[in-house]
Amino acid sequence: MQTRTNTLSDLTSPIASALDRVIEVFDAELRTDLGFVNHLVEQVRRYRGKLLRPRLLLLAARATGDLRQEHLVLAAVVEMVHMATLVHDDVLDEADVRRKGATVNRMVGNEAAVLLGDYLISHAYHLCSSLGSTHTSRRIAAVTNTVCEGELMQIAHRGNCELTESDYLEIIRRKTAVLTGLCCELGAWASGAATETVEHLAAFGTDLGMAFQIVDDLLDLTATENELGKTVGRDAELGKWTLPAIHYRDHADGEDRAKIVAAMSKPGDKTGRLRAILLNESGMVKDGERASAAGSIDYAMDTARSYVQSALAHLADLPSSDAKDSLTAAAEYIVTRRI
Amino acid sequence: MQTRTNTLSDLTSPIASALDRVIEVFDAELRTDLGFVNHLVEQVRRYRGKLLRPRLLLLAARATGDLRQEHLVLAAVVEMVHMATLVHDDVLDEADVRRKGATVNRMVGNEAAVLLGDYLISHAYHLCSSLGSTHTSRRIAAVTNTVCEGELMQIAHRGNCELTESDYLEIIRRKTAVLTGLCCELGAWASGAATETVEHLAAFGTDLGMAFQIVDDLLDLTATENELGKTVGRDAELGKWTLPAIHYRDHADGEDRAKIVAAMSKPGDKTGRLRAILLNESGMVKDGERASAAGSIDYAMDTARSYVQSALAHLADLPSSDAKDSLTAAAEYIVTRRI
Repeated sequence: MQTRTNTLSDLTSPIASALDRVIEVFDAELRTDLGFVNHLVEQVRRYRGKLLRPRLLLLAARATGDLRQEHLVLAAVVEMVHMATLVHDDVLDEADVRRKGATVNRMVGNEAAVLLGDYLISHAYHLCSSLGSTHTSRRIAAVTNTVCEGELMQIAHRGNCELTESDYLEIIRRKTAVLTGLCCELGAWASGAATETVEHLAAFGTDLGMAFQIVDDLLDLTATENELGKTVGRDAELGKWTLPAIHYRDHADGEDRAKIVAAMSKPGDKTGRLRAILLNESGMVKDGERASAAGSIDYAMDTARSYVQSALAHLADLPSSDAKDSLTAAAEYIVTRRI
Repeated sequence: MQTRTNTLSDLTSPIASALDRVIEVFDAELRTDLGFVNHLVEQVRRYRGKLLRPRLLLLAARATGDLRQEHLVLAAVVEMVHMATLVHDDVLDEADVRRKGATVNRMVGNEAAVLLGDYLISHAYHLCSSLGSTHTSRRIAAVTNTVCEGELMQIAHRGNCELTESDYLEIIRRKTAVLTGLCCELGAWASGAATETVEHLAAFGTDLGMAFQIVDDLLDLTATENELGKTVGRDAELGKWTLPAIHYRDHADGEDRAKIVAAMSKPGDKTGRLRAILLNESGMVKDGERASAAGSIDYAMDTARSYVQSALAHLADLPSSDAKDSLTAAAEYIVTRRI
């Protein structure tokens, strides 16, 4: 088991130098002689965080074969797709802070942020179509279709106090997990792995994405902006029901159920009211104070952990390697991370 | 010369039945079992207007060879890309009306409109990657890169009272003309035309796009919402300098120059003030009242006509055909259209 002090970078050292080359491919694709476009792209570089998706792709590649130039290109493509969704998400969420700095929408306005997201997605497809086969373009486009559907489902369910757990899981599967699944799938596919191996890697990445998003949503509720380096508390504020709130609503008695529905329905400081209910204090949460009503926070963490267990089972038949160890460590990191 | 009563549909009858099949391909690609996504896609169907881009692609195909299934797919792809830009444009322009109905952003909010645009562009790439070769995907992605750059340039120059005519032409080349150029290029390319012929068709489409956008910008200034079926007057209101205003500013004496700069700088009803200067009346313009100061409206129309002449010259070496006649008629329609 990894300790909490390890970063994702420590855990994935086998692909460190390849990751540097991915960043070179990424930057080269976005290079332009238009000054103001460059200025915007510079802002996006700051968004670069954990590079989870390129790491997964490269590790899946290494765990099933040899790294090739195609892997570097695909890793840059999936990161570009992810960044495009971040830029548009921040517009949709009216977020002000990401990676400890102002968001693109905050700095240059919603209009430029919408266009910058479009620019990133367009370059992702452009880069992808430089590869010899149409298979990867087709898979990436199919997955971005699903990501858009997930985001649209989420918007459609804003303020829906009857959102079920299975609706929630379907939303995060579409908006997050299919992309992490694709990373692992394409990593193995471009290594020439057998179909069954590609499918196991895809399932590993999908399960991992589920766990990642559940934890991400938990941190939006429990962590501070200072800890995460991005705007927090937006989910509840925008009427998005996430796992602990859904679990609490479904397991509380009538009075408490009415209380959480009211907290998520009345305008103004929904996050504060939800935190007061789920974290037994208003506002900040500190270590050891997670004894929530009905154990709903624990339930969400347990659900995330069970996805990680399911993910790890898909690695069982892979031969031992440092890349396999890193995939295992990355999976465990997902549920222990604090940022 | 065509009369003004002809519609684009009348002028392009040789590809009428093929166009119906393009719409089938378009609708099939966007079909989904998610109710709320279908609801949004339904709104987009209303956006379907002149279908200029699919028409150009199919006519270029017919004028240089035989229509194939690949042409139908490509025609659906370029229309999907175009619709994505319309949906995002309406968000950026805060437009309320398009095709005589409420815009997507007006009906379902900016968030869903941003995501719907993303959904359309993703499906455009998905559809394109169903074709056997990566060439078309690569070309479409390269052109959408340029379209995004054009839109970003336009945003960057909002409120820039020193925008030059050549800046303006470069913006419209990137945001509009490269896509109409691509339509004609891909139509000829997928017909297996010789490289020189493909290049002539590309140049024809690019020139036509320049003329089209100049006239579109003119209509935003001179026509009414009722005539056009979409929100008008947004360019000036958002501080976008278009050709007649640029020409007037550059050819007026000092006092009049200061007046137009003030009209475009002061907050509130910029469009009304600009119309008062350029159309010699405030608000609406009626037939026969286009005698503008310094002939700036005429200058813009003349510029559009000269692009059409340049476009037509690129058709010179094509063998006679009904498709060539339609391309010629469509080019002339661009500068005579009232909608």
